[in-house]
Amino acid sequence: MVVTKEIRLNTQGHCDVQDITPQVADAIRGAGVSSGIVTVFTPSSTSGLTTIEYESGALADLERLLDEVVPPDRDYRHNLRWGDGNGHSHVRAALIGPSITIPFVDGRLTLGTWQQLIFLDFDNRSRSRRLVVQIIGE
Amino acid sequence: MVVTKEIRLNTQGHCDVQDITPQVADAIRGAGVSSGIVTVFTPSSTSGLTTIEYESGALADLERLLDEVVPPDRDYRHNLRWGDGNGHSHVRAALIGPSITIPFVDGRLTLGTWQQLIFLDFDNRSRSRRLVVQIIGE
Amino acid sequence: MVVTKEIRLNTQGHCDVQDITPQVADAIRGAGVSSGIVTVFTPSSTSGLTTIEYESGALADLERLLDEVVPPDRDYRHNLRWGDGNGHSHVRAALIGPSITIPFVDGRLTLGTWQQLIFLDFDNRSRSRRLVVQIIGE
Repeated sequence: MVVTKEIRLNTQGHCDVQDITPQVADAIRGAGVSSGIVTVFTPSSTSGLTTIEYESGALADLERLLDEVVPPDRDYRHNLRWGDGNGHSHVRAALIGPSITIPFVDGRLTLGTWQQLIFLDFDNRSRSRRLVVQIIGE
Repeated sequence: MVVTKEIRLNTQGHCDVQDITPQVADAIRGAGVSSGIVTVFTPSSTSGLTTIEYESGALADLERLLDEVVPPDRDYRHNLRWGDGNGHSHVRAALIGPSITIPFVDGRLTLGTWQQLIFLDFDNRSRSRRLVVQIIGE
Repeated sequence: MVVTKEIRLNTQGHCDVQDITPQVADAIRGAGVSSGIVTVFTPSSTSGLTTIEYESGALADLERLLDEVVPPDRDYRHNLRWGDGNGHSHVRAALIGPSITIPFVDGRLTLGTWQQLIFLDFDNRSRSRRLVVQIIGE
């Protein structure tokens, strides 16, 4: 059984990180599927998905890592070609990845107590985003 | 067809890396599913999953990368807030990711000859861990 | 419904990045499955999969990041043990990950307009590669 849903978000860009756990949990509850996996996918090359303990300290620490290894304020070949200034956003997105798959059992995500599913918008401007939520199970 | 299993592990923390290929292969063999995918998921925000050639050289090289880009011995905002000293563990976990999905065919994982499925415990103490193994196929 | 396909590629190694979107889209079209997920997996410990805007600038920027954090020209414990000179390839592969799962709907991948599915060969020589494409849906 396959159920396709979507999540819509407005972000500020610039490494805006949003906790999308409630929306994904809602999608599963509404799908009529008891156990299986949910794949959340961002159809974009400047954003990504992972999990983290969603508290301001850990979020700041993750952003520092990205600022250090993929800083916004240096030359990027992408920017030289296209002039849109989001070369770092593309590299970060490729590194973190556009997709995450999480099991659910008895209609509930198997996330840990201190673990949230996050969407990271690496683009250099505010964006309206649409995520694909594909639920597969029985 | 969906079959849920779990794997229990005791780790030493501090980037303890364990080869969980045998346990996942066993889970598939016991599931009565011939072909499909297995998603292994850690319900934790201080550990991760990926694959590697499981030999001490490659493991040491991966740990060096993590020590360089996410060192344990610096300030973390997470630690300032919570005092538990595992800020680096959270960042590493978000970077590596909590989930991996691998196809299996005729009851066998499609891993390469020199490729093992690994669980990485980034926490700063020994832990008892439970992984979710979700098998979907026919 | 589970359909297993494969993709064969010849690469130059040395961070050769190939756009495999057309091959994966073809695999889905030929599978007779309308909606579901496709998992593409590399049975190798020296290559990886992610998405990016497939243009030479973004590809060069991603390669620069990898050259900076996992440079080829330094000592690796893997190389000291095995003498094959691809220690950096193993670390990069573990970092990027061997697997990607993407939803498809009405027979079409849900990738964004400027987003392509890429295979990255990190090995230090040309390789013939075989990828597993596992399609699950209805």
